[in-house]
Amino acid sequence: MAKFLLLNGPNLNLLGTREPQIYGSQTLAQICDTLREQAKAHGHVLEDFQSNAEHELVERVHRASREGIDFILINPGAFTHTSIALRDALLGVAIPFIEVHLSNVHAREPFRHKSYLSDVARGVIMGLGPKGYALALDAAIHLTQKN
Amino acid sequence: MAKFLLLNGPNLNLLGTREPQIYGSQTLAQICDTLREQAKAHGHVLEDFQSNAEHELVERVHRASREGIDFILINPGAFTHTSIALRDALLGVAIPFIEVHLSNVHAREPFRHKSYLSDVARGVIMGLGPKGYALALDAAIHLTQKN
Amino acid sequence: MAKFLLLNGPNLNLLGTREPQIYGSQTLAQICDTLREQAKAHGHVLEDFQSNAEHELVERVHRASREGIDFILINPGAFTHTSIALRDALLGVAIPFIEVHLSNVHAREPFRHKSYLSDVARGVIMGLGPKGYALALDAAIHLTQKN
Amino acid sequence: MAKFLLLNGPNLNLLGTREPQIYGSQTLAQICDTLREQAKAHGHVLEDFQSNAEHELVERVHRASREGIDFILINPGAFTHTSIALRDALLGVAIPFIEVHLSNVHAREPFRHKSYLSDVARGVIMGLGPKGYALALDAAIHLTQKN
Amino acid sequence: MAKFLLLNGPNLNLLGTREPQIYGSQTLAQICDTLREQAKAHGHVLEDFQSNAEHELVERVHRASREGIDFILINPGAFTHTSIALRDALLGVAIPFIEVHLSNVHAREPFRHKSYLSDVARGVIMGLGPKGYALALDAAIHLTQKN
Amino acid sequence: MAKFLLLNGPNLNLLGTREPQIYGSQTLAQICDTLREQAKAHGHVLEDFQSNAEHELVERVHRASREGIDFILINPGAFTHTSIALRDALLGVAIPFIEVHLSNVHAREPFRHKSYLSDVARGVIMGLGPKGYALALDAAIHLTQKN
Amino acid sequence: MAKFLLLNGPNLNLLGTREPQIYGSQTLAQICDTLREQAKAHGHVLEDFQSNAEHELVERVHRASREGIDFILINPGAFTHTSIALRDALLGVAIPFIEVHLSNVHAREPFRHKSYLSDVARGVIMGLGPKGYALALDAAIHLTQKN
Amino acid sequence: MAKFLLLNGPNLNLLGTREPQIYGSQTLAQICDTLREQAKAHGHVLEDFQSNAEHELVERVHRASREGIDFILINPGAFTHTSIALRDALLGVAIPFIEVHLSNVHAREPFRHKSYLSDVARGVIMGLGPKGYALALDAAIHLTQKN
Amino acid sequence: MAKFLLLNGPNLNLLGTREPQIYGSQTLAQICDTLREQAKAHGHVLEDFQSNAEHELVERVHRASREGIDFILINPGAFTHTSIALRDALLGVAIPFIEVHLSNVHAREPFRHKSYLSDVARGVIMGLGPKGYALALDAAIHLTQKN
Amino acid sequence: MAKFLLLNGPNLNLLGTREPQIYGSQTLAQICDTLREQAKAHGHVLEDFQSNAEHELVERVHRASREGIDFILINPGAFTHTSIALRDALLGVAIPFIEVHLSNVHAREPFRHKSYLSDVARGVIMGLGPKGYALALDAAIHLTQKN
Amino acid sequence: MAKFLLLNGPNLNLLGTREPQIYGSQTLAQICDTLREQAKAHGHVLEDFQSNAEHELVERVHRASREGIDFILINPGAFTHTSIALRDALLGVAIPFIEVHLSNVHAREPFRHKSYLSDVARGVIMGLGPKGYALALDAAIHLTQKN
Amino acid sequence: MAKFLLLNGPNLNLLGTREPQIYGSQTLAQICDTLREQAKAHGHVLEDFQSNAEHELVERVHRASREGIDFILINPGAFTHTSIALRDALLGVAIPFIEVHLSNVHAREPFRHKSYLSDVARGVIMGLGPKGYALALDAAIHLTQKN
Repeated sequence: MAKFLLLNGPNLNLLGTREPQIYGSQTLAQICDTLREQAKAHGHVLEDFQSNAEHELVERVHRASREGIDFILINPGAFTHTSIALRDALLGVAIPFIEVHLSNVHAREPFRHKSYLSDVARGVIMGLGPKGYALALDAAIHLTQKN
Repeated sequence: MAKFLLLNGPNLNLLGTREPQIYGSQTLAQICDTLREQAKAHGHVLEDFQSNAEHELVERVHRASREGIDFILINPGAFTHTSIALRDALLGVAIPFIEVHLSNVHAREPFRHKSYLSDVARGVIMGLGPKGYALALDAAIHLTQKN
Repeated sequence: MAKFLLLNGPNLNLLGTREPQIYGSQTLAQICDTLREQAKAHGHVLEDFQSNAEHELVERVHRASREGIDFILINPGAFTHTSIALRDALLGVAIPFIEVHLSNVHAREPFRHKSYLSDVARGVIMGLGPKGYALALDAAIHLTQKN
Repeated sequence: MAKFLLLNGPNLNLLGTREPQIYGSQTLAQICDTLREQAKAHGHVLEDFQSNAEHELVERVHRASREGIDFILINPGAFTHTSIALRDALLGVAIPFIEVHLSNVHAREPFRHKSYLSDVARGVIMGLGPKGYALALDAAIHLTQKN
Repeated sequence: MAKFLLLNGPNLNLLGTREPQIYGSQTLAQICDTLREQAKAHGHVLEDFQSNAEHELVERVHRASREGIDFILINPGAFTHTSIALRDALLGVAIPFIEVHLSNVHAREPFRHKSYLSDVARGVIMGLGPKGYALALDAAIHLTQKN
Repeated sequence: MAKFLLLNGPNLNLLGTREPQIYGSQTLAQICDTLREQAKAHGHVLEDFQSNAEHELVERVHRASREGIDFILINPGAFTHTSIALRDALLGVAIPFIEVHLSNVHAREPFRHKSYLSDVARGVIMGLGPKGYALALDAAIHLTQKN
Repeated sequence: MAKFLLLNGPNLNLLGTREPQIYGSQTLAQICDTLREQAKAHGHVLEDFQSNAEHELVERVHRASREGIDFILINPGAFTHTSIALRDALLGVAIPFIEVHLSNVHAREPFRHKSYLSDVARGVIMGLGPKGYALALDAAIHLTQKN
Repeated sequence: MAKFLLLNGPNLNLLGTREPQIYGSQTLAQICDTLREQAKAHGHVLEDFQSNAEHELVERVHRASREGIDFILINPGAFTHTSIALRDALLGVAIPFIEVHLSNVHAREPFRHKSYLSDVARGVIMGLGPKGYALALDAAIHLTQKN
Repeated sequence: MAKFLLLNGPNLNLLGTREPQIYGSQTLAQICDTLREQAKAHGHVLEDFQSNAEHELVERVHRASREGIDFILINPGAFTHTSIALRDALLGVAIPFIEVHLSNVHAREPFRHKSYLSDVARGVIMGLGPKGYALALDAAIHLTQKN
Repeated sequence: MAKFLLLNGPNLNLLGTREPQIYGSQTLAQICDTLREQAKAHGHVLEDFQSNAEHELVERVHRASREGIDFILINPGAFTHTSIALRDALLGVAIPFIEVHLSNVHAREPFRHKSYLSDVARGVIMGLGPKGYALALDAAIHLTQKN
Repeated sequence: MAKFLLLNGPNLNLLGTREPQIYGSQTLAQICDTLREQAKAHGHVLEDFQSNAEHELVERVHRASREGIDFILINPGAFTHTSIALRDALLGVAIPFIEVHLSNVHAREPFRHKSYLSDVARGVIMGLGPKGYALALDAAIHLTQKN
Repeated sequence: MAKFLLLNGPNLNLLGTREPQIYGSQTLAQICDTLREQAKAHGHVLEDFQSNAEHELVERVHRASREGIDFILINPGAFTHTSIALRDALLGVAIPFIEVHLSNVHAREPFRHKSYLSDVARGVIMGLGPKGYALALDAAIHLTQKN
């Protein structure tokens, strides 16, 4: 049994209402439920945490280390492009992670093309909407089993 | 009757004491009082919120949407140049806003020349000290009436 | 009693006809009339001058110095981004000025993001249409009284 | 029943032998077989094509249009960073596609960080090895069903 | 008697566990104890504060002004490269400070080469591990005595 | 019958004498005569205007709108690279235009590689000497008939 | 009698079907027929060649030298921006050529603004659709007669 | 006997009043008188022309060619950095010229570091105030005699 | 006995005819003969392959691996600056290689200063004409013997 | 007992006279004496060397290797930003070193922000005046004892 | 009586022989003699010093301070673009200086366009050959008398 | 009989001891001896000179001209990237030269990718260790015989 942690960054609490043409109409709670089920179906557990505060995400990552989380799935939202602290937290705990984006950030403003996380992530999945989370969990389960 | 929200970002709680040659000697409380009166004089209401925390501003913007705020006046302070989360929050709730700066940011360090908000703002007013807030409210009232 | 000068740069004579979705439907004459009234209502005078020629604007600025103009409001139009001569004229006569733009230049082509005037202006107001001129005059009156 | 096309660009014929620490030890034939099975299991068909020649990939894309391919999965290899012709071919036939990379290109040379395809792709999956292909097909099936 | 404040930014609470080959094996508590002793030995007092939250550091700086702190020693961690708010707070209270980094940031990723604090700091010390804090306090005592 | 306007920018009055190895030996008057004949032969009229003054070209474009000019052929000379006012005038009147250059600007100084007009032109013809004007008129006649 | 060669690069075989709002509805075969007639009407011959393969275009240019081609008209498509080999081939055989683009590349993605051919071409014609080919041939006939 | 032309660009009519700490207290008329005397003392004639209008300077250069001017001394003022038309005029008439600046432009704003004239000038003299004009005339007399 | 492979990229089949002032008058066949002799004289064998097609060179490199080639000498021609596929092929087979250029690419257009191969080559020799190939073979023999 | 070497680069012989507002009023001899005493007090020896010549510093570093110097303290002065030879010398002898600057180079001209030594130094201390040397020696003693 | 120092940097000892089409045919000795005479004629003295060694120039500047030199004329040759040490020496002694270049550096390689001295020089004279030295001395005498 | 000069720049006196994994284990004396023998074997003479001082290399180049040196082989070491004076010296004496580097500078720090000598060299050889010197001499002999 593996332990997964799904992290969501700022404004993702608005999912389902905010700019649905970009982010889709599913709420974050629905997405998290689906993923928890998916993990459970494979005999694993998944916790989730959303915050608009950088430090809460940083500290959730720190705690993940103490809790024995095996793999992190993270949609860092706007922090993708601005938070070195989050990068450092993930490097600090050395838990493998996959970076997920609902939208295709390369089709948006240039400042969204740069990520402080991608080069230290195990993988990146973007542009595939909520399905991207499911794929990331699928990959995480796969990678966890390989080790 | 329209509802306005005045947001002030980090360090603006120091107004009146911090570098007065740049920011003037009025306190933020005084500025907010003046604006509240100005709104009231036109039959509108204005609320204000200052925070040094990015997530509190992001969440205040989220709440503005639920409260039916018509227009936001925002002096994002240092977050102007660093916070994509704040941009995303404002885009997410789709409330029109005017960006205000007390000082003329173009006359200061190059890193202050870039704003993550300006291109999605209705307008920008800078360099005119506390008077800039009053002008922004004047414009907001004007724009709200037009719609 | 203070003397104000409202300067408008190239193509602003087309106001009301040119790209109304960007610049609005008021003519420049209407805007100038409104501002003249606004100045008069506060016991001040305002003159206006529009030209498509850089040198005519430069020389109007020179003359402003000899005429004792107290404050300049200027919408430099395309010269914002190309005229160092206009900057030098304004620096040369040392009359304080506010830079006004009808549209939000940050939401347009990148070459419109750079201004040769902003860093030496007292303030900048943009994106608020013809209302922006009224706000600038309001600020100019305010700043003139303070001195 | 949907028709999928899996395209692989230059040097991917070396898979399993070339730099296994980066690209893994599975051969391309093994990967293609797995994907064909995966498609079949969902009642779909998948064809695959690898070439070291840009024009052969371009022309395979052209033919895909005539053959009624519903979705393309493409690992463009080095052409990711150099082939505008491939971008134009994909835009020309207007078949949705997902861009897949075995390795995490952001963790490699800077010239691999730029893609001529990403901004016009439906999604991007990278760094997850051969599993990434399976995830991409999963997503493609999902997206095809939604339409 | 002078009052010193030692500030530590995000992830520094992990010291001793996080990437010890870069940051050493001493915990932050041990470092703070050592410094408090060092200050005391010279007849001074030193307080310390660590936070993963930008706004808590900003507000600790604000409070430092009210408490009469004479000198700040700050290891801003990842905020070095991203926080203009912290720079503004330090400028706002006008307390002299020394910037300290445990590792040699010039030997790391390019985005760590830029600091929003260095040009307004009294001095910078980097790459010398926990010893760097002791040197910074030594310098602060020296500079405080000179004034 | 369509009405064409041929505009020529600064220094083009020197044609035939100035750097003939770059610009050829025909005078501007000869070129204009030839084009007027070419227009007439197709039942159209063509007017021409040359000026070394940006504002005169801007104002000639404004007048073109009032005169019902259908298409503009313009060799902006040095203003190609420096005049946003001319771009704005052409955008303002919304008359389609073709940009013509006698020389191949890409084979000259780097600052000549950038045009403020090309991206809003219908087409660009360069490097073909006076023949380029004839081709542009041919295209303009063609495009005018299509509408 | 002169011999002309019309070269078309990748994806131009899709003409008439691919993104007709950008490239028009004429097929390449129709364009080539028209040009062949145009050449014939002036007593010249024109051959044409399209390829999606860079090396085929390079080798067609080599052969042109052996066949005594007097002038080349080339729409390099995506190779405009990526093929130094094609530039070298054209420089190697020293046959004068005109670069043609159906669309106005300056109004498209930034990576299309750079051409490896323009500075060594006799001239460039862009944005005028299939008419641009006819103009280029017209110019080529004109230039060939002059020599 | 040689004929010299002294050209002065925008805002130089303000000399003696404008920013005297940068430009000195001599008027332009005084400077021109001194230079006319200096030329006369060597048996030469010098004419001078100042304009705030680019086209007037361009046309004065054109006329210089017809009048047999041997050498031009030019202080292009702000046009140094913005006028390609003036460069083209000087190249067009092929009269040798020296570029003069009263102030040291390298000690001022970065946009003043670039000149469109320097690389085609015979020489450049800057930072030496009105004396710089006298030196330039001295050099021009010297260079004219050498030929 | 070692096996060497000499690869030549696009347009090098023109050697002896193309721009002889840059590339010399020897044909590629002559150069290859000379090198084959040179290899033979040292008891080694050398094969050669020229292609204008990137994929043929890529596949020749792949085959080299299967054939036990010990060392590659490659003049990639224009592919030096554009082919990441060729870089990947060489990295994929892990055969050491020396990059050779007939001309001094640093004395030519800026886009020729960048090589996708140099940093993974054993060495680079440029500017020495056909002699450069002989030197490269000399070095390759030397390096092969050392191992 | 450890052996330290204190190196000072160009113009540091002027210390005490040159721009005292930047560099302080202590002479280099005084600083060296103080450091020699400090080393002696810990049972170590310190030698010092100042030169305005790059090669003398390079050769002093070479000799340090033969003399068994354990640690170098270096204020490279202007060579910080221009001397790769000094970097190579320090890398060549592989003696650990700390880079010291009297002034805060980040608060000065941009070209002083880049150092050719920092990324290969053990640590960097800047902005703390002569005290910085004492701190560097303190650190060097500390680091030497640790090994 | 004023004391002038004429400094010449590397390779200027070759004057008269090195690239005479750029630097003229006068030797440095001849130039120095002429300047010494010119100084003497005005009742001043001029010393000269040429060196190919940066440190000798730096130290000559240091000595100038002790000798009471009033003004320095310096042609820094290649050190213009590479020597911050020379800049620091000149700033350190605070003797006003004029920078002279025989050739017009703006018409040469881009790396010659940047000077480490110009922004701290009193003035710059370039492109006027040996006459430029005479003009610089003339200016220096003039400036010295003014003070 | 030809005369060759082998120049070696800073730190190359350390060869054999300094970073042998990069530079090999042969001493410079051994390399020079080998080359002298190689020259002698072909009836030529070779002199060598190493210096850590830029001016000594510059002056050695000057003397080479007076001594009738036919060809220079130079490994400029760190001066490759920093010395315009050396470039000027080589251009000044107009002796052809080959630039040699022991290591492959393209595989090292970015600042080593730029050479001030390459574009004016006859050829460049890098990455081939001491063998590179022998190849350069071989080429020099070859080129000398051709003339």
